[in-house]
Amino acid sequence: MHFGHALPLQSGASLSAYDLSYETYGTLNAERSNAVLICHALNASHHVAGVYRDASGELVPRSEGWWDTMIGPGKPVDTDRFFVIGVNNLGSCFGSTGPMQTDPQTGQIYGADFPVVTVEDWVDAQARLLDELGIATLAVVMGGSLGGMQALSWTLRYPNRVRHAVVVASAPNLTAENIAFNEVARRAIVTDPDFHGGHFYRHGVLPKRGLRIARMIGHITYLSDDVMNEKFGRQLRRAVAAAPTGPAGELAPYKFSTQEVEFEIESYLRHQGDKFAEYFDANTYLLITRALDYFDPARDVGGDLSLAFAKARAKFLLVSFTTDWRFSPARSREIAKALLDNQRDVSYAEIDAPHGHDAFLLDDARYLGIVRSYFEKVVG
Amino acid sequence: MHFGHALPLQSGASLSAYDLSYETYGTLNAERSNAVLICHALNASHHVAGVYRDASGELVPRSEGWWDTMIGPGKPVDTDRFFVIGVNNLGSCFGSTGPMQTDPQTGQIYGADFPVVTVEDWVDAQARLLDELGIATLAVVMGGSLGGMQALSWTLRYPNRVRHAVVVASAPNLTAENIAFNEVARRAIVTDPDFHGGHFYRHGVLPKRGLRIARMIGHITYLSDDVMNEKFGRQLRRAVAAAPTGPAGELAPYKFSTQEVEFEIESYLRHQGDKFAEYFDANTYLLITRALDYFDPARDVGGDLSLAFAKARAKFLLVSFTTDWRFSPARSREIAKALLDNQRDVSYAEIDAPHGHDAFLLDDARYLGIVRSYFEKVVG
Repeated sequence: MHFGHALPLQSGASLSAYDLSYETYGTLNAERSNAVLICHALNASHHVAGVYRDASGELVPRSEGWWDTMIGPGKPVDTDRFFVIGVNNLGSCFGSTGPMQTDPQTGQIYGADFPVVTVEDWVDAQARLLDELGIATLAVVMGGSLGGMQALSWTLRYPNRVRHAVVVASAPNLTAENIAFNEVARRAIVTDPDFHGGHFYRHGVLPKRGLRIARMIGHITYLSDDVMNEKFGRQLRRAVAAAPTGPAGELAPYKFSTQEVEFEIESYLRHQGDKFAEYFDANTYLLITRALDYFDPARDVGGDLSLAFAKARAKFLLVSFTTDWRFSPARSREIAKALLDNQRDVSYAEIDAPHGHDAFLLDDARYLGIVRSYFEKVVG
Repeated sequence: MHFGHALPLQSGASLSAYDLSYETYGTLNAERSNAVLICHALNASHHVAGVYRDASGELVPRSEGWWDTMIGPGKPVDTDRFFVIGVNNLGSCFGSTGPMQTDPQTGQIYGADFPVVTVEDWVDAQARLLDELGIATLAVVMGGSLGGMQALSWTLRYPNRVRHAVVVASAPNLTAENIAFNEVARRAIVTDPDFHGGHFYRHGVLPKRGLRIARMIGHITYLSDDVMNEKFGRQLRRAVAAAPTGPAGELAPYKFSTQEVEFEIESYLRHQGDKFAEYFDANTYLLITRALDYFDPARDVGGDLSLAFAKARAKFLLVSFTTDWRFSPARSREIAKALLDNQRDVSYAEIDAPHGHDAFLLDDARYLGIVRSYFEKVVG
């Protein structure tokens, strides 16, 4: 969808014109009352569900939407009942206007000159998309992690356009530790000699070293200590790769190397870093982590989250996961408390899951069951 | 101290000759029974206590030993009673033989060719130093974090040369998450174009970008989420730096920048990274984190820590800190259990401190009091 009228941003800058990539699933009903907006987190896109087919009609391998466990026909967010919209945020790198694209005002690739965007800016852009789609009110706005922050922001910026907000594994703002991890990742990217101040496109290089480090750090914070120990423990890569040559229980010898892969966890992280550096834009990484840092709806009201949520009118489902140390259950409880202080209708589920922050993307029967039950009560 | 006879290493390699830098405090008694060996962690040295004076007798600013709160006249480890030895480990960069020095066999700076050293290798080298000093048996071997691993290793490799082991904020091995953080830090260093495969010395450059990232990651893991929120929270750097210009409570505006420092925590981490990159050797960082990864005294006995500690004869004081998520209290309890399974004499203190892993270096009255009481019972 192309937008030809300028979008004013929180920073004071504005985007004179921009595109938003989006996908829809299911059918908008005659009353236009069954729309569900899905907001994405750091490295995801508008492709929230389903599988792509190529020109010859064949299924494209590994093209499942990032929340395909959650969204689809007969799934917890049932596209037989709801009209689901996935939208790629401004500044991202999956089709919507972002740093990899050309600034119409200069004819140059934006790069580091792409304006800093915030959760509020994304919500404003999403609201314009809904205007164009003829949707006045959302049945549900929903997201996990940074997507949950967008859902929260929707209930504050457009309180009368949201009937329900489903906020999973999210937080009312980042802690100092959260910001710290983002900053280390950003410094790895910015100090990569191939970053060229964010204008690497014109040099024909990509700051892949920095992106790899950023992604490795991210992955550590997405997983729990428990699940890392269970999946990888102190297992040596050599022991996994080699055919067994000795009696059961024989130990693979250490390589005694500081630079080669020794442990399985190292192999996993390097692989994740390599994959990410192939497809993700470095400037987008900076922008999206900064949007996380800046989100703080209580900031303008002296840090009083209850005061901030006085504006909200939606009903809420909040979900957190016990082993999520990035956005811990305590953070979701802060939101629940602020909403209860305002006599809002809040359901809160704390799921005992071992997978850390990643749990919000995984197939967990209790988690999916709770979302399913909640959506069954939403009148489309 | 120069050693002219080869030290065989766990890896199968050996060091043909080497130097160890060490300092001593207090006086060895006639019975040679009051020696305390202090083992250091990642970035510390043999300078464990006291302050240096320059040639004119003036105190050198900021030259306090890294455990000066713990060690000195009248302090918990009382140098009026004990003969305390601090030693810089092989592979480090504070005077003992390491990657920055010349390999006598090639006449070249070791760089990445310095052999991989382990906790066990360090302990063997320390034992030779004690031989030279005429000390058959240690009253106490003591260390925090990686230093605690050396103390544990002493009780297993030289069970009859250690009467007491004081093991603070340590672990019987690293978890997958611990290894993961080490690996990201190492990758940041190794993939810095100025690393040159570890032979950067001959190129006249230092891989400072990588060292900065490594140190920033390290610092996050040394602090607790709580203390980070208390010290830094979401405080803006601008708000700290600027003179107050508005009414109390007025908010400094965001800069809306992805590359400039915005939050105070970012400024702190960048400063720590910059400082570290000025003085610490990149190859040493790789070696010492690898020694951490490899330490696993139960590895050769099927992972059974109780079986591993069957060899130990010392008495033990174990100390952990409630908010230490790098080496959590649960890890110290694993050690305590293994020792109790062997009817060893173990005291265990879990200190309720907000400072995370860093607590072992800080001035905490309860912590220092417990160490003091323990040492008062040690017969010198």
